[in-house]
Amino acid sequence: MHKIICVGLGPGDPDLMSVRAHRLIAGARHIAFFRKAGRAGQARTIVNGLLHPEAIEHPMEYPVTTEVHFATADYNDALAAFYDDWTGRLAALAATDDVVVLCEGDPFLYGSFMHLHVRLAARCPIEVVPGIPGMVGCWNAVGAPFTWGDDVLSVLMGTLPEADLTHHMRAADAIVVMKVGRNLPRVRRALAAAGRLDDAWLVERGTMPGQRVQRLSDCAESESPYFAIVLVHGRGRRPV
Amino acid sequence: MHKIICVGLGPGDPDLMSVRAHRLIAGARHIAFFRKAGRAGQARTIVNGLLHPEAIEHPMEYPVTTEVHFATADYNDALAAFYDDWTGRLAALAATDDVVVLCEGDPFLYGSFMHLHVRLAARCPIEVVPGIPGMVGCWNAVGAPFTWGDDVLSVLMGTLPEADLTHHMRAADAIVVMKVGRNLPRVRRALAAAGRLDDAWLVERGTMPGQRVQRLSDCAESESPYFAIVLVHGRGRRPV
Repeated sequence: MHKIICVGLGPGDPDLMSVRAHRLIAGARHIAFFRKAGRAGQARTIVNGLLHPEAIEHPMEYPVTTEVHFATADYNDALAAFYDDWTGRLAALAATDDVVVLCEGDPFLYGSFMHLHVRLAARCPIEVVPGIPGMVGCWNAVGAPFTWGDDVLSVLMGTLPEADLTHHMRAADAIVVMKVGRNLPRVRRALAAAGRLDDAWLVERGTMPGQRVQRLSDCAESESPYFAIVLVHGRGRRPV
Repeated sequence: MHKIICVGLGPGDPDLMSVRAHRLIAGARHIAFFRKAGRAGQARTIVNGLLHPEAIEHPMEYPVTTEVHFATADYNDALAAFYDDWTGRLAALAATDDVVVLCEGDPFLYGSFMHLHVRLAARCPIEVVPGIPGMVGCWNAVGAPFTWGDDVLSVLMGTLPEADLTHHMRAADAIVVMKVGRNLPRVRRALAAAGRLDDAWLVERGTMPGQRVQRLSDCAESESPYFAIVLVHGRGRRPV
């Protein structure tokens, strides 16, 4: 029995993947990765030029992404069928070969691979290689220390209701908001209500070509790309 | 003018440092790292066997660690003088050579390097290479997906007052507690008060030799080593 090896790619710069990830990707004969239909796929783009010449690629194309709302039964059914299908295909491949599954950031931190992980766990051995989360690449792009002393850091999804966002932002010292995209206006209002809007940064495509770092209050746009993260730095204890 | 390059080493397994970190460390002629006096130092141990044969090592030994309480003026003064001193020494080295400073995990996430960063910023160019945070290595060691869907993740320090810990634990879905050590009994009580003790894991030396993963409720000890992290997994939305 061979293995499914899910490899965390880190925040986007190929130079920031781990030594182990780099070695596994360069040696893999089967490479699977998620992507939106019709796109090259962010994970696949990160490993451009690294794959073995004989590698067989298995793009796993989402049946839906944002055109159906995630809270609907249709969305749930379509995604569950998609993960079930690929669970079968990857398990079949693992009968005769190792399969490397690419995953942006760290696979266990809000990663799509987790939906395969829970399904595959009973069927074949799985190894997961951690990666630098996207948010870590983004706060590095801002270029200032992020959390200090006993700062409380909260990681929030932009998909949360506005009142929940505000509540959690008020309680935290340092804040990360992921899944910003079309939720940007709500995230902005919640930060303002929590008194933290003037401290917030918007980082797009952190560590990748086209990286953009700006103060959120300087950004007039109502939507940001999916690879955008909002950050508020902590303010904790430090020796002075 | 040369640079100070702070390199995140990741969670402890040398194979999990980034490709860039590995290359910079192997090529460095000056390597600085924090350690407790009389110890080899965790950061230095991670890079065993990787250093250039002509590398000059600069151990930066903390004047105090846990034997003086961090809230006292003595602690503050001793640490501030220590960081001031090494700021001068590193800046002097950077006049003629690049200097690589080792940092466990990610340098901007509760890292000691940040106290040098704020002091050095006006004196010489600084580059920071992100790393996989220790907590990411630890949740990988547990072997299960950590956060899902719109889970709220809170990262808390075990040094916080018990009531604050409980309050934040109640509000979060997924929880990380760092700086556990001698605060373990308080962390345990706060988790129990928040109704999350039965979900908690204690990970010691995650990804390193001697790694130990156990349910916190199975651990009778009243103190854990400094390299211990308590984790509670999220329970968010997922297609079923």
